[in-house]
Amino acid sequence: MYLPPHFTEADPAEADRLIDAFPLACLVAQTPGGLAANHLPLLRDGAGMIGHVARAGGLHQMLPDGAEVLAVFRGEDSYISPNWYPSKAETHRAVPTWNYQVVHIAARIRWDDSPKFKRRAVGLLTRRMEGTEGWRMADAPADYMEAMLAAIVGFELTITRVIAKTKTNQNRSDADFLSVQARMAAQGKPALAARMARMGRGGS
Amino acid sequence: MYLPPHFTEADPAEADRLIDAFPLACLVAQTPGGLAANHLPLLRDGAGMIGHVARAGGLHQMLPDGAEVLAVFRGEDSYISPNWYPSKAETHRAVPTWNYQVVHIAARIRWDDSPKFKRRAVGLLTRRMEGTEGWRMADAPADYMEAMLAAIVGFELTITRVIAKTKTNQNRSDADFLSVQARMAAQGKPALAARMARMGRGGS
Repeated sequence: MYLPPHFTEADPAEADRLIDAFPLACLVAQTPGGLAANHLPLLRDGAGMIGHVARAGGLHQMLPDGAEVLAVFRGEDSYISPNWYPSKAETHRAVPTWNYQVVHIAARIRWDDSPKFKRRAVGLLTRRMEGTEGWRMADAPADYMEAMLAAIVGFELTITRVIAKTKTNQNRSDADFLSVQARMAAQGKPALAARMARMGRGGS
Repeated sequence: MYLPPHFTEADPAEADRLIDAFPLACLVAQTPGGLAANHLPLLRDGAGMIGHVARAGGLHQMLPDGAEVLAVFRGEDSYISPNWYPSKAETHRAVPTWNYQVVHIAARIRWDDSPKFKRRAVGLLTRRMEGTEGWRMADAPADYMEAMLAAIVGFELTITRVIAKTKTNQNRSDADFLSVQARMAAQGKPALAARMARMGRGGS
């Protein structure tokens, strides 16, 4: 990924924050049939990550244990018009760009088809998404849950590299930055607006 | 991508609709340094696609003409709780899932660093995003625009395969489907709700 220093995410907590807020990863791998991408929720689990795929998709048969994968997490994104920069009216030295937040996790995959592992994988995900008041695995009949677990294959990722990119006009003046920040808040991009606000530009 | 028949997008117009509504692609490629993903807007252009990257990112030096790439477009997504299905209260035979829309475009890349091509690439993108009333390339000084064009490298994609997946509980009963459709509308997922509405389930 192209990552100039000014767009490198400076807050070490932001990668986990983004993954937590936008857990649906695009899991990319090179397979014998070409580049493959699958969309699935992934959770941090200790130093690694944990997830599962549908057995019928066959990804566990295309990728051996230890294969390189790339998990791409993406938050909100927005086209940015030069007309949103106050400086544009003065200098006209601006072109469109696109703002976004992404976290790329390069990792090695290891499959685990054991019921114990899979029950833990979906259990963690359920607690993360449902909290303590929502649906619980114990709500489903045991035979049904067993059949559902048999239809998935679990995996864990051993992380080799984490790259976080936050592209929110950090390279522009306070006036331009704050104008875009206000646009994001007004145009339904609360996560981008909040990240920009946390940068504390403009002394407000 | 795992794509069971019931989640294969049935409307041939939907892939273009999704790309148009969510033009920021995740462009994936295998490079000598490993799997690479870059986020950039892509437009349909005749039978192919057109885009550009930052020269400083060096992707044009990592990928020769003709290299395989995968452009992943993604619309809205949402965790789906079993508690949202009316049938859950009766049978309890439900587990969580995740709904989303994606289009995967497998393609061959061809770089074009000529000013004419690049001016056309950013011109098409500008007109798509700004319309006829917004910012225009001619608003910027000629020397500035030349420097900006020099900082990018254009490319076109020759499409080899388009796969569109719409995962919106098509495999559940009308009652469950319509309940999720209402949730999507109420929970800030208008694109998912609209796609579900276009499926015309429940005879409403």
